[in-house]
Order: sequence, then C-alpha cells, then structure tokens
Amino acid sequence: MWMDKKNDAGDSSRDTRTGWVQKVHLRCMGDMLHLDTLMQDRWWVLQLLLWALRGVARVILANNPISGLLILAALLWASPWQGLLGSVGVLCSTLTAVITGQDKSEVSAGLHGFNGMLVSLLMGVFSSAGDWYWTLLLPVILGSATCVLLFSSLSPLLDRWDLPVAVFPFNITIFLFLLCTRPEHPYFPRHLAVPPGAVQVNATQLDALQVLQGIPLGVGQIYACGSLGPSLLIVGAVMLYSPLLAVHALLGSAIGTLAGLSMGVRPPSLYAGLSGFNGALGCMAVGGLFFTFSWRTHLFAIASAFFSAYMDIALSNLLGTVGLPACSWAATIVATLMLLMNGSLKAYRIPIGQVQSPEQNLRSRNQWEAGRSADQDSTDV
Amino acid sequence: MWMDKKNDAGDSSRDTRTGWVQKVHLRCMGDMLHLDTLMQDRWWVLQLLLWALRGVARVILANNPISGLLILAALLWASPWQGLLGSVGVLCSTLTAVITGQDKSEVSAGLHGFNGMLVSLLMGVFSSAGDWYWTLLLPVILGSATCVLLFSSLSPLLDRWDLPVAVFPFNITIFLFLLCTRPEHPYFPRHLAVPPGAVQVNATQLDALQVLQGIPLGVGQIYACGSLGPSLLIVGAVMLYSPLLAVHALLGSAIGTLAGLSMGVRPPSLYAGLSGFNGALGCMAVGGLFFTFSWRTHLFAIASAFFSAYMDIALSNLLGTVGLPACSWAATIVATLMLLMNGSLKAYRIPIGQVQSPEQNLRSRNQWEAGRSADQDSTDV
Amino acid sequence: MWMDKKNDAGDSSRDTRTGWVQKVHLRCMGDMLHLDTLMQDRWWVLQLLLWALRGVARVILANNPISGLLILAALLWASPWQGLLGSVGVLCSTLTAVITGQDKSEVSAGLHGFNGMLVSLLMGVFSSAGDWYWTLLLPVILGSATCVLLFSSLSPLLDRWDLPVAVFPFNITIFLFLLCTRPEHPYFPRHLAVPPGAVQVNATQLDALQVLQGIPLGVGQIYACGSLGPSLLIVGAVMLYSPLLAVHALLGSAIGTLAGLSMGVRPPSLYAGLSGFNGALGCMAVGGLFFTFSWRTHLFAIASAFFSAYMDIALSNLLGTVGLPACSWAATIVATLMLLMNGSLKAYRIPIGQVQSPEQNLRSRNQWEAGRSADQDSTDV
Repeated sequence: MWMDKKNDAGDSSRDTRTGWVQKVHLRCMGDMLHLDTLMQDRWWVLQLLLWALRGVARVILANNPISGLLILAALLWASPWQGLLGSVGVLCSTLTAVITGQDKSEVSAGLHGFNGMLVSLLMGVFSSAGDWYWTLLLPVILGSATCVLLFSSLSPLLDRWDLPVAVFPFNITIFLFLLCTRPEHPYFPRHLAVPPGAVQVNATQLDALQVLQGIPLGVGQIYACGSLGPSLLIVGAVMLYSPLLAVHALLGSAIGTLAGLSMGVRPPSLYAGLSGFNGALGCMAVGGLFFTFSWRTHLFAIASAFFSAYMDIALSNLLGTVGLPACSWAATIVATLMLLMNGSLKAYRIPIGQVQSPEQNLRSRNQWEAGRSADQDSTDV
Repeated sequence: MWMDKKNDAGDSSRDTRTGWVQKVHLRCMGDMLHLDTLMQDRWWVLQLLLWALRGVARVILANNPISGLLILAALLWASPWQGLLGSVGVLCSTLTAVITGQDKSEVSAGLHGFNGMLVSLLMGVFSSAGDWYWTLLLPVILGSATCVLLFSSLSPLLDRWDLPVAVFPFNITIFLFLLCTRPEHPYFPRHLAVPPGAVQVNATQLDALQVLQGIPLGVGQIYACGSLGPSLLIVGAVMLYSPLLAVHALLGSAIGTLAGLSMGVRPPSLYAGLSGFNGALGCMAVGGLFFTFSWRTHLFAIASAFFSAYMDIALSNLLGTVGLPACSWAATIVATLMLLMNGSLKAYRIPIGQVQSPEQNLRSRNQWEAGRSADQDSTDV
Repeated sequence: MWMDKKNDAGDSSRDTRTGWVQKVHLRCMGDMLHLDTLMQDRWWVLQLLLWALRGVARVILANNPISGLLILAALLWASPWQGLLGSVGVLCSTLTAVITGQDKSEVSAGLHGFNGMLVSLLMGVFSSAGDWYWTLLLPVILGSATCVLLFSSLSPLLDRWDLPVAVFPFNITIFLFLLCTRPEHPYFPRHLAVPPGAVQVNATQLDALQVLQGIPLGVGQIYACGSLGPSLLIVGAVMLYSPLLAVHALLGSAIGTLAGLSMGVRPPSLYAGLSGFNGALGCMAVGGLFFTFSWRTHLFAIASAFFSAYMDIALSNLLGTVGLPACSWAATIVATLMLLMNGSLKAYRIPIGQVQSPEQNLRSRNQWEAGRSADQDSTDV
C-alpha cells in the first residue's frame, strides 16, 4: 500500500531501489512484494495460498511466503497433526476475513492469518486427547474465526496510537478456549499449565548443555514447537526473510533463558525453551522491525527482551494458579509499550503502515535522510 | 435529541413519519418519545417516575416506560423484596444523576437508571441474609450512586469510539461489593457463585423439558429472575417495545443454552437459564438495536450470541475460582467488540445518538435511503 | 511552564502575585518554582538532587523539595535500610529518565522519580530476607528503571483524556516483581499479603485508641511506613507544602478507617493504617489538587475517599487469594475516574499542565475569574 504510493510519487527512486534489491537481496528475501503483483490476476486459490503462507510467517514477525512454507514444513516435520491444525487455522481465519469483508490489503498481507494459526497450534498442544482427535477441528475452526472478529474490533482501538493489533486476538481466544475446558472435560480434555516457579531449584542441578539447547528451542516455541531440528529450520526461515531479525530472535531467547536462570525457574521450562520465546519476540519487535536498527535501538531491544522475559515469569506464576499458560501476553504487552514510549526511542519509530523487513527499513531510512539532505542542499542554492 | 433536530429540519418528513407511527404502531410501542413532550411541564415527581421506568426497561435494551412498568410488575410478582430493591436502585441512581448534574437528556432517557437497578437486584440475589434484611439498603443506595459516577467517568473514554457505556458500571460495582463481602461476613453475608464447569455431566442425565424451559428463563435472568411466569411477562414487555428485539432475545437465549450443552455445563445452570442470558443480550444488541436489521446483521447476531455464551462460560469458570459470578461481562464485551468491528458489518452500524427501537431504525434507514435516491434523481435532472 | 506563560502575559499581575506569595507564604511553601530558576546554571549533581527531592514529595502529591527532604528524614528515622532503598530508587529512576531522553520539564518536576521510589520501598517491605540484604539492590535498580519505561509508555495513552500517569507504573512494576518471587524463592524470598477480610472480627474486640492512631499511620503508609513519629513528620511535610492537602490526607485516612470498620476488616489492618492510605490518596487528589477547592469539590473528595477505601478492600480480598497486596491501585483508579467525570465536578477541573498546590490553584482561579469579570466590565463600557 505504502509501496504503491511511493512508487507513484517518484519513478526515479523506484528504479534505484529495484536495482538495490536485485543486487543485495536474492529475489526470495525480504517482503517479496513483487510476488503480489505477479499473482494479481492468477487463480484465487493460489492467491489464498500466498496470503496464508504470509500469515504463517507473520507469527514470527516475518512477511515472506517462502519463509512461511519452510516454517510449515518444520511444523509438519515436528508433528504432522500439529502441522495440519496450523494449516486449517491459517486457512480458516483468512477465509473468514474474506467472507466478513475485511480490508483487502490487510488480508493479502497475511494479517488475518497468524492469530488463527497460533490458536489452532495451542489448542493442539494443550489438548490431552492425543493426536488425530478430529473433534478438535470444531473449536479450531471456531477459534480461528473468532480471531478475525477480535482483530477487526481491536484495530480501531489501537489505531488511535498507531499500534499494531499483534497477537492480542490469539492470546484472548486461547484463554477463552482453555477456560471453557478442563482436564476431565467430556469433549475437550486438556493439560493444565504448570507455573515456572512451582518447585524450588538448586543451580547445581542444571545441565548447561540442555540450557544452551533451550535457546534455539525458544525460537521454535513461538510456534509451540519443542524439537530441535524443526526449531533450527524455523530460525533458518527467519534468516531468509531477514538475518538481522534472526539474530535478534536468538539473542532474545538467550536473554529470556538468562532471566529465567536469575529467577530460579524450573529446569524443564528452561530446557524446553519456554523461558526464551517471549524474550525472543520482545527483542525482535524492537530490534529492527518497528524501529530503525541502530546501536541505541539495539540496547532498547535488549531491555525489551529482559522486560518481556520477567513479565512472562510473573504472568505465568499468576495464571498458573488457575491452570492457564501465559502464552505471548508478556511480549505483546511489552512491544506495545515500547511502541508508545516517548524520549530518544521515539525518533527511530517506523509508522506501522511503512514497516518492512529490518534491512529494507534501514535502507528506506538512509535513502530518506540522503534525500532530505539533498533537498536541503538544493534549497540552500 | 436527535428526533428534535430531525423534526426541526423538515416538517414534511415529520408528518409522514407521525402518520406511519399512528398506523403501524400503537401509541405505546417503540420509544414513546411523545410522552417526553407531554410530560415536559408536569410535576417533577411524575417526570422522575417516567425516567426511572425508562431505566427499568433499559436493562433489557428497551426504551419504553410501559415496558418498564410491566417488568417491574414481573419482578414484584417473582419476589416483592427483589422488586423493592430494584425500585430503590433505579430511583436512587436517577436521583444521584440529577444531584451530580449529569446531562439532562441522558437522565430523561433513563440512561442513569439501569445500572443502579441491576446492582440492587444482584445484591439481593447474592445476599444470604434472606428477604427483608433492611441493612442491605445501605449498600444498595451506595452501589446505585457509584454506578452514576462510573457511568459519567467511562462515557468520555468510550465516546472516542462512539461506544455506549452499557452495563460496564453495573459489572464493576457488583464485583467490588461481592469482593468486599464473604459468606461469613458480619453484616453482609453472601452466597458464593458456583462455576458452570464444576461437575462433570453425562448428557443422558439432562431433562429436555427443563432445558427448553431454560430458554425463556434466560430472558428473565437478565433481571436475575428465575421464575417462569415473570420471565414470560418480561418477554411480553420487550415484545411491546419491539417484536424484533423479543425474537432476538429468545433466539439468543436458545443459542446460549446450546453453547452450554456443547461445553458440558452443569444441568442446574442450564435449567435456570443462567447459560442463556448473555447469549440473549449479545444477540439483541447486534440484531436490530445498534445495527439496522438485515439478513447479514442477523447472521452476525447469531455469531455474537455464540461468542457471548462461550465467553460467559470461560469467565464464569475463571471467576468462580474466587467465588464471583460472571454477571453480564461477556455480553457487554462482545457487544462492544461488535460495535468496533470493521468490514461488512460496519455499513449497518447506527450512530449511538440515533439508536431507536429496531423497527424505527429500519424505517429511518429506508426513508433515508429513499430520500438519498430521490436527491440523486433531482440532481440528475 | 505555565507560570512563565502567565508572567509573560501580564507584568502587573505578576507583581501583585509575587507580593501575595511573599506576604502569605513563606518562601519554602507551595511549589517553590523559584528554586528551579535559581538552580538552572548550577552543578548538574545539585540539580539532580533537587529533581529527586521533588520526586520524593510527589509520592504524596506534593511538589516541594523541602517536603521531600523532611519525608526522606522521616523514612531514615523509621528504618535506615528503607530510607536507603527509597533514595536509590528515586535517584536511579530519575537518572534512567535522563539517559533515555525523557522530556526535560517532566524530569525537573520530579515526575520520573516517585514511581521508582515507591517500587523500591515496597520491595524492601515485602522482602523476608531482612534488612541490609544487598542483593535486593539489583531488583530495586531494575524496577526503578522499568517505572520510567512504563511512565513514558502510558503517558501518550492517558494524555488523550488529559489524565496524569500517576502511580500506575509503580503498581504494575511491584506486581510483576512480587509475582516473580515467592516465600521460598532462592534469591528473593518474600512475605505473602494477607487479605483484610481473612478473619471474622467482633466489633467489641477493637481498641479505639489504636484505631484512632491508625489515622495518621494511614498517611505514613503511603510511604509504606508504619511508625507513628515518622508518619507525623510526613504529615508535617505535607502541611509545609499545602495545609489544605494535609487536612484532606488526614480526613481521607479517617474515612478509609471508617470504611474498614463498616466492612469488618481485620484489626491489625486498621491499627497499622493499611485501611486508610488509599482513602487518603483518593481524598487528596480530588480535594484541592486536581480540582479547585470549594464546598462542592470537598463533598466529592469525601465520596472519592469512601470509594477508594471500599475498592481497596475489594481488591485486597481479590489479590490476597494469590498473595498480592492491593498497593494503591484503588486510589489511582478512583482518582482517574474522578478526573474523567462529567457533570458539575467538571467545571472545577484544572488542566494537568496547570496543577499547582491547592492554595495556588485557588488563587489562580480567583485571579482568573476577577480578570474575566474586569474584561467584561471594560467590554461593557
């Protein structure tokens, strides 16, 4: 949307940029917006698939259909049933968005797919009925549709402050589902979440290697995936979209694990990467995506990762008393707060409508600043 | 308020409309705004009674003093003590609104009465001190006054998005009261709320007739009334205001009961209509009141009823862990979200200041569209 | 800031006002804004100290560095360790605000200090590791810094309705810290909060003298200080800033104690002043600070104190189930609601940017009204 405006405004700048993209990036890195124009007049089903794949990648803040395809492959590798649930979720919520007449540019950017996918994946993870329990498809479909409704309702609220809806709809919907069910539920039995501070732990009991392994697993846990191979594939998919984002994901997960160690979190949480994924998300949102990358932004990204990780421990302890997981509430709240923040961070903020991959954000900013100084030169003369 | 403007604007349209109203409606159906002009110069006490009766009907989204009178009769029939508490609540909060200088048009529309009434009724229902326990009048008076304060404070917040304050003040106030008290409280002992998912239920144990009876009871439960006769009278009172609204009330209650069945809710909840009343409110708000009635709106009303009912089960399970009921939080939140929603539903949204009974909304819309096409014709020529 | 504008506008009015200030007030009462101009070109460390002392006083809604100094002395008198924690907190959060580039006028007004101070004091109070447990300085520093982030993020949200951020950041941060820890935590063990309605109490068991003593202690409890002498010194510090504010503090604490009695709160809570401090804060905010003092405002201040006190009992009972204290949530929420309220209270509301000490607010209003009537006279002629 913003791209089009920019392109209309100045043809010469487009040419220079297209040149840049071809030189520096491969055709399948970054936002791949050229694919949208390519697909414009093709079959509707192919377009829907493209939107859904963007939705899959959006969960981890990437906007690239090939990353989405790789992530879907990783999920199917980890568990075919989970992969199926995720696919049903992303397709179902994208379709609901089309049927209820949501904004077409939002749908084609995959913005109506990622919440539905997450709800479906988490329903599968917390179900204690085992794999291939087909009745679960009913709440998966309803829950994915609910996410679209919530996305559409929350966006006018958050738009006032130019904030993204992010994964608020997922976090709300999965809470409602988990609260409706219980371990001995007749149709939808589920596991209870265990608070991370449940048992006291002695630091000597920790296995350093497993803690280290928790760092890449923390990136995989964004998709509720707890196997090492698929998690590494997910990291690779993010790296395809943006190497800067992938580095921040691993850094954030490491910070989250550190925060977990400092608060004496249960070892199983640390080993499984459950302490890391909120830190990863908080770090990625600030370090490059919603703010232009710089050393100052990088420090704020580290602070954001620590804040997300500690808030996650706090919320997990609170919600664990009623058997609920803290999902990604902490990272979502912290990222929203960071986007609202005044002071020196505000100067680096990118308006939501103009957010691209971190590398492209950086390049746009440099061009814009170069253009501004050129303008000033010409006015001076 | 809006009526006056319209009447001033075009005399001819008023004449046509008045003709319509006389022909189609009886004088005591719809919003009965002619009564306001009739009462303008009469005794203040009579005016106060009119405002209070509008407040009584507003609980169930109706704005008609005769409906209010019928509902009050139903409550007195079900329990004279509850009827008294409700009357004290609605009068007390309307008086507080007058004393604290709230907007006169809001007061005369009954907007400052319904929250106070609901708080008083619920205080009575949850008190375990029995009927005619006069000490309860103290919190009833304080609680009703608090609702006015909350209404007045929340309206600038919600006005930004043209949202109604609805029953948020009631839900907040009753929570504060119930949290201050406890079963063995020295002055205000109370019952604990039982979460609907407390006991596992086998579907064969259900009595189909009692489940069906829960549907009209669900409408009565909006006034915390659990007897069949009075509940039917309340349905009748709504039908007097607007048959379309009454149909949506029953439909929503049925959907709520269905949602309860699908989630294995305790049979006593289903039989008493406690699973139905949030569905009924959610269905009424979308199906005709805040949106012009059409087949598309009707489908959204059904979705809203399901969403309200499931959210009510989730919130009841959560709040039941601390002995609190979920009141009408679910329906209030869902209706607010629906009013915020983008997409195809937005085109049917009626600005809050122009909301009338569903039938009048529909007629205004048709006239407006007819007028617009007439305008276009004249401009074409 | 606003003072400057006013002074620029009319020199004659400044002279009269300066005369007033010199005559009625001592140089060390009220907002002491003359000190800011005096310090403008001095050492940065002295300026930082001034900002921090304003921050210390801001906790109790005063904006006067000498009051801050007295309060710090009172805290050191009650417990040197607590005094140290508070000092570290206020300095650390003021420094964080400078480093993260917050608005300079906000920093110099002490607005970035008081939340950090409160967090540090409460961390000390709830720690069960005893005094001089130096590891606690780590969360104290992190928590104080977090408050700045939250203050900076919440202010664009609340600015839309011209609301102050108040102590929301403190209340959020201390919750997160307490939820991360637990009684048997390896590094940060803590006490659990006991809900005020935990044990049933017979009115005859109460010691009237100790209940009365709870009233000044309620003012001290704003700084988590439970000793009588220091609490009286704190009252004195407030009186230095504004006698009207000190009267409302004691009145509010008395009302809070009364509300506690009416709800059968545990005697230890009443004796320690824990039932009073939310009432005191709620009463001070409405009675003079954010609204011009008048008899009508005074009545609203009493209502606000009652509402704060009852809400505090409700929240304490709710949060006590997970071992959390209600902190000053109740007073903060009620004051925010009061500032939003429509009706007759709105006419007395002072825009946030123009709030001074109650006496100065009153004088500004009188001058402004006198000026307006003088203007009208001149226009009439």
